[in-house]
Amino acid sequence: MADRIYLFDTTLRDGAQTTGVDFSVADKIAIAEALDEIGIDYVEGGWPGANPTDDTFFTEPPKLKGAKLVAFGMTRRPGRSAENDPGLAPLVNSKANALCLVGKAWDFHVDVALEIEHDENVAMIRDSIAFGHARKGEAMYDAEHFFDGYKANPQFALKCITAAYEAGARWIVLCDTNGGTMPDEVERIVREVSKHVPGDHLGIHAHNDTEQAVANSLAAVRGGARQVQGTINGLGERCGNANMMSLIPSLMIKMGFDTGISPVNLKKLTHLSRMLDERLNRAPNRHQAYVGESAFAHKGGLHVSAVAKDPKTYEHVEPECVGNRRHIVVSDQAGRSNLLARLDDLGIEMPGEDKIRLLLDSLKQQEFKGYAYDGAEASFELLARKAMGEVPVYFRLSRFRVMDDRRWSARGELVTESEATVTVKVKEEEVMRVAMGNGPVNALDVALRQALVECYPTLQHMHLVDYKVRIMPPRADGTGTDAVTRVVIESADAEGHRWSTVGVSANIIDASYVALRDAYTYMLYREGVR
Amino acid sequence: MADRIYLFDTTLRDGAQTTGVDFSVADKIAIAEALDEIGIDYVEGGWPGANPTDDTFFTEPPKLKGAKLVAFGMTRRPGRSAENDPGLAPLVNSKANALCLVGKAWDFHVDVALEIEHDENVAMIRDSIAFGHARKGEAMYDAEHFFDGYKANPQFALKCITAAYEAGARWIVLCDTNGGTMPDEVERIVREVSKHVPGDHLGIHAHNDTEQAVANSLAAVRGGARQVQGTINGLGERCGNANMMSLIPSLMIKMGFDTGISPVNLKKLTHLSRMLDERLNRAPNRHQAYVGESAFAHKGGLHVSAVAKDPKTYEHVEPECVGNRRHIVVSDQAGRSNLLARLDDLGIEMPGEDKIRLLLDSLKQQEFKGYAYDGAEASFELLARKAMGEVPVYFRLSRFRVMDDRRWSARGELVTESEATVTVKVKEEEVMRVAMGNGPVNALDVALRQALVECYPTLQHMHLVDYKVRIMPPRADGTGTDAVTRVVIESADAEGHRWSTVGVSANIIDASYVALRDAYTYMLYREGVR
Repeated sequence: MADRIYLFDTTLRDGAQTTGVDFSVADKIAIAEALDEIGIDYVEGGWPGANPTDDTFFTEPPKLKGAKLVAFGMTRRPGRSAENDPGLAPLVNSKANALCLVGKAWDFHVDVALEIEHDENVAMIRDSIAFGHARKGEAMYDAEHFFDGYKANPQFALKCITAAYEAGARWIVLCDTNGGTMPDEVERIVREVSKHVPGDHLGIHAHNDTEQAVANSLAAVRGGARQVQGTINGLGERCGNANMMSLIPSLMIKMGFDTGISPVNLKKLTHLSRMLDERLNRAPNRHQAYVGESAFAHKGGLHVSAVAKDPKTYEHVEPECVGNRRHIVVSDQAGRSNLLARLDDLGIEMPGEDKIRLLLDSLKQQEFKGYAYDGAEASFELLARKAMGEVPVYFRLSRFRVMDDRRWSARGELVTESEATVTVKVKEEEVMRVAMGNGPVNALDVALRQALVECYPTLQHMHLVDYKVRIMPPRADGTGTDAVTRVVIESADAEGHRWSTVGVSANIIDASYVALRDAYTYMLYREGVR
Repeated sequence: MADRIYLFDTTLRDGAQTTGVDFSVADKIAIAEALDEIGIDYVEGGWPGANPTDDTFFTEPPKLKGAKLVAFGMTRRPGRSAENDPGLAPLVNSKANALCLVGKAWDFHVDVALEIEHDENVAMIRDSIAFGHARKGEAMYDAEHFFDGYKANPQFALKCITAAYEAGARWIVLCDTNGGTMPDEVERIVREVSKHVPGDHLGIHAHNDTEQAVANSLAAVRGGARQVQGTINGLGERCGNANMMSLIPSLMIKMGFDTGISPVNLKKLTHLSRMLDERLNRAPNRHQAYVGESAFAHKGGLHVSAVAKDPKTYEHVEPECVGNRRHIVVSDQAGRSNLLARLDDLGIEMPGEDKIRLLLDSLKQQEFKGYAYDGAEASFELLARKAMGEVPVYFRLSRFRVMDDRRWSARGELVTESEATVTVKVKEEEVMRVAMGNGPVNALDVALRQALVECYPTLQHMHLVDYKVRIMPPRADGTGTDAVTRVVIESADAEGHRWSTVGVSANIIDASYVALRDAYTYMLYREGVR
């Protein structure tokens, strides 16, 4: 029986520290649910009391099936009891299932940053963990700067963590906060520490400042640690945290550990990685280990023919096991099996060979144009169901005209107005409508739904909740010409169901129209309008 | 005396295999010279005989001061002498100082890909190395798939490399071609191999398929290898090669090796990294270890105040030693001390108390409106310099009108056209211009610059390289009303300088205008227009 490694994801907490990353509550909920879906043990959701987003998130947290939701915070302040600490109160009162409390473990920091007595630091850890443990049932201690601290003053660092362990901490997480420790040091130190705190109570939290966060995490596991912290795509401040997308397959496939993730769920890894980038509105790293678009791309002719003889010649693992695919030539089996798995997910009955081929072809065409369906499930479902002949054409656009006007008003203020005029053919009738909006896409949305609502009254109950735009650069291989714009729209209905659609065009308004069209069509189809 | 590690850069050969990378001869010369400049031992320039670019490069190679120029190629074909091999001829006839010859070391590949006798494979290696050594004075053997081969059949793998060593190979380079080997395996295998071939004749060539190419390279060094191969920024096929930008500082600063690079030249590392990205016309990875723009960025208020007390609290090395710098990120978490550090970074003289207060106030107001300056440094700089009274008003917008029209053309095709009309006051004169574009923002950009270029001709040399949009939801605390749109635009000039600006408004076109206005203003200010 393989040892169990517990996975702790901190995308929503430490990952949120990344320059330029700004999760909304909706982002946090979607990401937490996706992590729960693949079988992560702990999802750290944020820091209750630190900002309005995290407060809202913990007030109505998502219902997770298997994962424990963790609230992060600091150990109590100096000279105060844990019970009366204003920082700990929102944590123990939150709806989190477990707490993760950070405290110093490096004497230098206690002297220079906190400027308090060493014993008080140890007491802060002990009291806070005991309090968290009593109130929430599970508390863990993030030992900040543990490795630097251990190298400088091992007695003090060990004193900090044994205090936490004795106070009932489920996990003592050894943090390489500055990210400068080397893998051989990590392995040696964890091995030494495990003589004081058992390895199945030790965790590792690594940063990528020497590009070795993954190696450091795996070194800690070799040293005996049994909890691993990381983030999706290695998100995190400075150079990032340890990348879960690399850790998970290496732990499972290379090292043979049980992570609680099934082989079936492991296949969702590539999708999870891309989904985060879509949420963050940024281009995925093509070269990312395991899940990157180029991770199994074969360029050289010699490589390609060897791979055709036996993929093991130039592939260290099978791309399918992480839900990725080989990129060589047109008709690849991996794309096909991924597609069939997704159809199965959608509950679409297994179609005949001709329909599968039709769908594969239209997918390939769409991807060539710049479409990507990882963050636009509703558009993918429509594409698939259209290929099966299931989706009616609810309306046809004849024309739109959108105008944005910025000028000085009569009252001497700069005002901007947007106005959209649309002509739509609905059930053999041409309908023309005009509307104002607080932007061109809003105006277009309002005008289109005014034109449609008489036939399809349900559309008045939907609204846009998110709108994202990305410019796709011209193709490197020269097969495309100009840059295109990709728009992803997230819509919601009155019951709070959400769905995402995508549109691509050289023109942003045009791309927005395509995404809006899919959004309406998806709602109508899902509600059974035929 | 510290051990000497020899650095072997393969950016121009293995790095050139990266999807989308296509070096010109001029690129190759400039990169080879930059590598020579910082003190790399070996610069692998390409494969003579494989393509016209590499042929031209080796016909008139750059004159390197200290680095040896290496030509790459394959060992001789089966059933032919090295002297008569058409592949080896261009190598030995090239102006390279040394040869690097790749040959199989995994019996599985000899059986499946080559389909020849094992002994013939060994003879191919021996003959080719002996021939290369005799003709060029220095030959090395790239042992392809060495680690997979050693795990499958150690006797055969050792036979391949000892044949090369006995034939006079200066270096036996152990390649993890598929990139799937783990660091502890690499270290153990190199240690075992060094009983057969001395460590100061062993090299390591690692790939990043488990995100551990750097760790694997350093593990090989711990195991005894003394040559390390890698590429600038980890360029390379699939997930890339080992990243020299991370290897060099870790070898020198963390492990104390002598790499032949002086501390003064180590400071050129960040520049070398960015220079490659400029050549490739792509945005540098902000989060890259050591040399990334965010590698020493501090965001949280607590971190910032600790770093102000002593940088060692949150920095594993000094940013200056690799030519990078500390970066204090301006965000709503940041207070006064962040702001002052940032002004210092920009070289703005410490202002009086009233100006600091003015700037803090306007920052707070902007953030309340939805602005964020994390990814828009140029807009932040303009805000700061405006508060100091340093930035002139180059122009004023009187009006714009943008129209997007989608309709059926006379030829029966759906077409979308965007047209922008602008009225701008430049130096007391009202200028009106109209332009078409492949989208409303492009049309607006073209029309605005047409209006401005007569007064400010330099603006014709800038262009948009990226455009990002994000909807900021209504504030959770209820202090705002509607959602606003945040647009971030990245611009570049003819020399490849890039700068990012931000605009916020309920209307996306309006927000885009504000970001464009800042982009023009920043360029004019930076070029000294007053």
